[in-house]
Order: sequence, then C-alpha cells, then structure tokens
Amino acid sequence: MKLQHVIYSQQFSVPDLMELFTRTRLMQKTVQRGGSRDYDDKIMATLFYKPSTRTRFSFEAAMYRLGGKVLSTESATSFSSVVEGEQLEDTIRIIGDYCDVIVLRHNEEGGAQRAADVSPVPIINAGDGSGGQHPTQALLDLYTIYNECGTLDGISVALLGALDTGRTVRSLAYLLSKFERVKLYFLAPSELQIKQDIIDHLREHNVWFHLNSDPEEVLPHVDVVYQTRIDRERLASKDLSASQYNINPAMLKRMKPNALVLHPLPRSVEIDPAVDLDPRAAYFRQSRNGLYVRMALLTMLFDSE
Amino acid sequence: MKLQHVIYSQQFSVPDLMELFTRTRLMQKTVQRGGSRDYDDKIMATLFYKPSTRTRFSFEAAMYRLGGKVLSTESATSFSSVVEGEQLEDTIRIIGDYCDVIVLRHNEEGGAQRAADVSPVPIINAGDGSGGQHPTQALLDLYTIYNECGTLDGISVALLGALDTGRTVRSLAYLLSKFERVKLYFLAPSELQIKQDIIDHLREHNVWFHLNSDPEEVLPHVDVVYQTRIDRERLASKDLSASQYNINPAMLKRMKPNALVLHPLPRSVEIDPAVDLDPRAAYFRQSRNGLYVRMALLTMLFDSE
Amino acid sequence: MKLQHVIYSQQFSVPDLMELFTRTRLMQKTVQRGGSRDYDDKIMATLFYKPSTRTRFSFEAAMYRLGGKVLSTESATSFSSVVEGEQLEDTIRIIGDYCDVIVLRHNEEGGAQRAADVSPVPIINAGDGSGGQHPTQALLDLYTIYNECGTLDGISVALLGALDTGRTVRSLAYLLSKFERVKLYFLAPSELQIKQDIIDHLREHNVWFHLNSDPEEVLPHVDVVYQTRIDRERLASKDLSASQYNINPAMLKRMKPNALVLHPLPRSVEIDPAVDLDPRAAYFRQSRNGLYVRMALLTMLFDSE
Repeated sequence: MKLQHVIYSQQFSVPDLMELFTRTRLMQKTVQRGGSRDYDDKIMATLFYKPSTRTRFSFEAAMYRLGGKVLSTESATSFSSVVEGEQLEDTIRIIGDYCDVIVLRHNEEGGAQRAADVSPVPIINAGDGSGGQHPTQALLDLYTIYNECGTLDGISVALLGALDTGRTVRSLAYLLSKFERVKLYFLAPSELQIKQDIIDHLREHNVWFHLNSDPEEVLPHVDVVYQTRIDRERLASKDLSASQYNINPAMLKRMKPNALVLHPLPRSVEIDPAVDLDPRAAYFRQSRNGLYVRMALLTMLFDSE
Repeated sequence: MKLQHVIYSQQFSVPDLMELFTRTRLMQKTVQRGGSRDYDDKIMATLFYKPSTRTRFSFEAAMYRLGGKVLSTESATSFSSVVEGEQLEDTIRIIGDYCDVIVLRHNEEGGAQRAADVSPVPIINAGDGSGGQHPTQALLDLYTIYNECGTLDGISVALLGALDTGRTVRSLAYLLSKFERVKLYFLAPSELQIKQDIIDHLREHNVWFHLNSDPEEVLPHVDVVYQTRIDRERLASKDLSASQYNINPAMLKRMKPNALVLHPLPRSVEIDPAVDLDPRAAYFRQSRNGLYVRMALLTMLFDSE
Repeated sequence: MKLQHVIYSQQFSVPDLMELFTRTRLMQKTVQRGGSRDYDDKIMATLFYKPSTRTRFSFEAAMYRLGGKVLSTESATSFSSVVEGEQLEDTIRIIGDYCDVIVLRHNEEGGAQRAADVSPVPIINAGDGSGGQHPTQALLDLYTIYNECGTLDGISVALLGALDTGRTVRSLAYLLSKFERVKLYFLAPSELQIKQDIIDHLREHNVWFHLNSDPEEVLPHVDVVYQTRIDRERLASKDLSASQYNINPAMLKRMKPNALVLHPLPRSVEIDPAVDLDPRAAYFRQSRNGLYVRMALLTMLFDSE
C-alpha cells in the first residue's frame, strides 16, 4: 500500500487495514526487542495547536522506538508569535522543510486536509477540531478489537456515552461498517445519541444497528463495550443521569466472559477503578496498542516515499 | 576560521562569510544524503525566553541533521520558577554545563553578549530584543542572495516595509555593505524609514543607497526585492496605506525575469499568495536555507573547539 | 544494589550511597569522553506538573549523555486537557507504556509514591509538593560534599536560610544523619528554623546539632556552609533582616581555607556574586554534579531491570 498522508480513518480500505495490522504486530515485537534503528535519519515534527500530552507522547515514543528524532511543541498556539493573517499553509510549508513527517493537531475541522494540500512531507492528523477526525485513535481502537477477538467480522459492539460529540465513537462506527455481519448498539440518553449522518451511513452500507436500548439488556450479549466520556455538565443541564451508562463490577459480572471493555482514555467516573483488575478491562492494552499502530503508520509513510 | 560565539552579524568578515557559505552548500548535500552522524555526541540547548516555533525548529532540525541531541524550551519565561533577582548569567553557567552549545533568544537587547561573557559553551544569538540582533536570519538572507545570484558584488537590492523596526532589514543592510558596488533602495513610508545609524554606516563605507523612491519605478531595475512586514496597526494610526509596498502578480510582471523576492516569514498580507507560484518567489527556498546555514554555523562552532 | 524507584532520599543506605557515588565518578569520566551509547534503546519521560527548566534539563542531559531519548513536558498542568476526576495513576499507567523511566515533578506531596505504586517503569521523584521530597537534589548535595571533602564522617555543616520550608536542607539533614560524628548547625531566624520532625530524627539517631547560633561565630569553624534562599517577603512580613545570613567576601575571609559554600541554585541576593571567584564557592560544581548523579541513578535503575 502507498500511503501519502493519514487524514481520516475512512481512507483505509479493508486490505489497507490488514496491512496496517500486520505491521502493528511486527512493531510490538520490535519494541519488545528494544526498538529499531531503521529510521534513525528521520525527523518527526509534532505540531499541536491543542495540547495533548498523552497523544503527543504516543507519537513521539513511536518515532523514538523506530530510531528517529522529534521536533516538539506542547502548545503551538500559546507560543506562536502570531502574525495577523498568518496561514497554517505557510507554517506547514516551512516546517515541512525541516522534517520528514508532521503530526498535526489543529483546532479547526479540515485543518489536516489543508495542511496535506501544501505539505512537502506526509501529514498525520492527530485531531482536527471537535467535529473533525482523529484517525489514529480509531485505528488503534479497531486494531485492539481485531487483536483481542481475532476477527472483526461478526463482531457485536455496544457504544456508550455522549455519542453525539464523541469523535472516537463516530470514527469507530465508520471503520466497523467496512466489515461483515457487524452489530452496533448505540446506548445513550436520546439527547446525546449518535448523529443522523452516521445512521445514514450505516443504512446505506446495510449495517445492523440499534439505538436507545437498555444497557442492562444489551451488555450481556455483546463482544465489545466501547465506553466514552459523558460530560457531567451537559447531563446536569438536561436533567439526565449518566450512572446507568457507567461500567462497574456489577455490570461486568453480567457481561460475556471474554468480552472487552474499551475506552479512549482519559476516563472520569464512567469506569469504576475496581473494573481495572478484570482481564476484560482492555483500555490500558488499547492505549499501549496506540504506540504500535503509530509506529506501523510511520513505517508505511516512510516506506512509501 | 575560529568561531567562539555567534552574537551579531557584523562579526563575520567577508572571508568568514565565504567559509560559511562553502560549508552551507556542503550541508545541503549532507541533508540530501540523509544527514550526518558526525556530531552525535553533541547536545544543543534552545533557551527561548520569547517563543518562536519556526526559528526553534530550524535550529533543532539543524542539530538533528548533524546527529546531535536537543534540550528544548518553548517558553523559558512562562515556565521558570522565577526567583527574585535571578540572573541570566547564573542560568547560562548552569545550563552550559549540561550541553555543548546554547541557542538563546532573550527578551533584552544585549542578552546574548551577557550570556557569551560567562558561558562555558558557545552561544548562538537567536534574537535579543526587538532592537537587537538576529544574526542567523541575516546570514541566511545573505546566503540566499549569494546562492541564487552567484555573487554579492554589484547586487542591487530594494528593501520594503517597516524599515525602522525591521531587525532583519537592518542586519542585511550591514552585511551587504561589506561587498563591492552594492546598491540599496529603502522603500517605506517616511514614518517607517530606515534609521539614521544605518544611513551613517552606509555613508561611512561609501555604499550607494537611495531613500523613499517609488516602488513602481525601482522594482523593475533591482536584482532582489526584500520585503518585510508592515504592522497594519502602526499604519492605521498614521493614516498611511501599505498597499503600494505589497508584492502582487502585477508588480511581479514588471520585475526582472531573474529577480528574487525574499521575505523573512511569516508573512501577512504583504505578499499575495498568487506570487508563490512564480519561480522568482524565493522565500520558501530562503527559509529552507536557514536549516543549512544553521548546520554550517554549528559545525564551525564545534570544529573550533 | 537493586533500585526500583527513586522516591525519597532516606531510601538509600550508606552502602547504596557509596555505590551511587562510585557510579557518579564513572559518569563524570564518561561525559569527559563524550558520553555513552550504552542506553540508546531507552526512553525517559519528564513529566513536570510544576515547571523547572534547570532540573528538567539536568535530567534530560543525563539521559542524552547515556545515549537515550526523551519525551518532554515543560508544564504538564498547563497543557493537559484536564478531565474532571482524571487521576495521576491513569496518566502514569499510560505514559509508562511509552517509555523506560518517568521523571515526575508533581504538585502534591506523595505524588511520586502514588505514581510508583502503579507504574510499569521506574519513577524518579523530581520534587513532589513544597513539603515533599526532591531526592536527586539531596543526593547531589551529599555527593558534592563527599567528593570535595573526601569523606562524610566527621563533617561539620552549617545550614543557613529559610530552614522551615527548605526542602533541600531537610533532605540533606536526613542523609547526613546516616554518617558518623557529623555536626550540624541550623542558622536561621527563629521564625524560619528547622521543624521539629527533623530535630526529633536527629535526637533519635544521636546526631550532634545546634540551633540559632550566630553565623559570625559558627562559620569560621565548619567544613561546609549550605546556604539556601530566604524569601524576602516572608522576612518583611516578620520584620526580620536576612542580611546576616548572606554570604559575602567579608564572611568568606573568616571561613576555613578549604571550606565549601554550597547552594541549590537559583540564588537571589543571599550569595554576593563576588564570592563566585573564590575556589570555596562550590555551587556551580555542585550543579554540574547533578548531571553525573542523575546519570548514575539512571544506570542503577536500568541495570536493575
């Protein structure tokens, strides 16, 4: 597969995803062996207009484990001597001459595509606006299900939380729709339900899904529970309670013995820390997979040059 | 040439500049070959009291392409546990023990020289105060003209914009005055014209120059147009219009076929993006040269030890 | 010695300290030879919830001189997309999967221990709260005395400044109490004297100490003067003068010819810059030792794996 930029999760076909997952497993072995030096002439720039220590570290560690080097900004917005009318495009053109790949977290939807249109080097979208994409998160979510369940075909997944604004949930739904006989349950207070565009997409692709089911009824039957945050303030203002969407040991007891609990992290109250000890709690393994998936993506970009 | 610190652009004699330019061309080839590892035992500290992502990345990429490592601050001022009465000199003495070269952007004029006076390792001035110096910018500007025109003797240069506060314009004028038969046109609203100290310097060194000419008349005859920012607020408050100092395709049409348009970047409205496509638009090549010039300076410092 | 985490200075027994000091001397030689590459597969994360450029650079330079790589935050607090109820423990679990050691400066006392309890990799405490520990500073202070005086047994040390809040002074007193025939003088305005817990500890371990002596009388007789900051505002509010606790050339003249003046830096007015030129002024050598001690600790952690 030739890979030029990583902008949105839907750009990956099923064969692309399988190549990515094969490389990801290889990367896990590479890390266990102490990392690689194959890319020690490469420089990655992490240009984060919105700070995220975790995501940035995951990318930077991926580059280091490949032998490369990193130009880093914690908060490009705070520290740009912002010029009136200064363009993202100019910044990308300039920084693209200093490095071999740019990891961009931009504050505006569509920022990553704008960057890719002018960049002399590959762009990886690490999030563009709250309504935008965060494809590496979606890819590591998908890889985790694939890796733990052994397949994606026939998988049943319950998605819980604030689904309307949940960037990761939306991307995951898109990606899962590429596979066979997938079943999706969207469990949320109706005010926070998944938006119509996703519903339309699933209908168009004949994906089985169900809305507004009772978690108590659904969770015992699914292979994967993908939990995301519910902002308490949003609930308060709508006079709703989030507690029925939280995962706790009682809930866990009713789930399948080999089910998975996933969460993009960081979590707040929506997963009880007591759940951490259960082997079905896969969110820290999921986070670790982020390192391997990002390494795999970097190698795909560098090997496509 | 023995090089101990890089504090101000005038410290470089013409033979020094020629050695720098020879090394700079070598560095361009080094980067094309994937960089060097000759300096992989070296550590550079970038100590930026005023943030500048672009300048910092250019220095850090230069160090990485030489194989070295980087200690980095985005904003040393924001994040120092500032102690009452704490001295720059103490900070430099301490950090100088952790690294092999310090790149300093200080907020006060003269800060770089104060640092050099006590530092155990070379200091590179990456800007010291708005009235101060930014020698690596001046050197990369000069290199770009030299590299694109093949010579600096006999060059005619129009300098446009807010020339009174333009640090880069001032430094470039100084450096160009070292060469033979140079002609300088300073084009600016009279309120923003180049200051008397530069005029005195040029007179003293018998450099041909002209002030306040009409851009329409001058631009068709020069080899280089060096454009810099005009702060719109300053103009507004003085009831002036900047548009006649902007570069647009119409203006470009009247310029020499092999002229150069330079700009220290970032730009605002003073260069129309339509100009970017013209091969005479050299500002992105100029920015890229910053990487090679900084690599060359680092090797000169390290090789002088 | 097996070393798993570096949380508090008292965790080191005298044999541990001797192993550390032997390694520290080796590290000094390693740096003089241009550093090591023995740990070039290792990644260190510096997670600073309270910024400190100097301390961070010292750790990062230590890692670089060992050949390793660094994930860096200048200010994790400013730039975390803080989630309501987000736990340090989760952050450590996640980041611990990206690196081989975490250097943590946390804003709460006990933060380092909480991190160590869940971390998959070693934690080094780089300061946890103003009442907490900063063990690497204490270890480099102790090493400096050991290295310059040749022994720690029988050493007499005067500790000056705001001793009640002085984290470094408190830790040093603990460490020195492990050695034979040590004499400690605590010199401070009584409002800022060392706290009862240290006094109790010294009594319990039969360490000779004296409080509230006159600096004029004590300083001529001690081997080491450990000076720390007095916050002028605290003094002003208590109508006290700090000047009698300052070190100046007149004071220096009355000290032993081979005495040491130490200070954790940065200093304010409490050491006259004229003192810097005297060979007894050891605070910059002390700061440099921080690099070697931190390298030594990193090797002890990595070699214990």
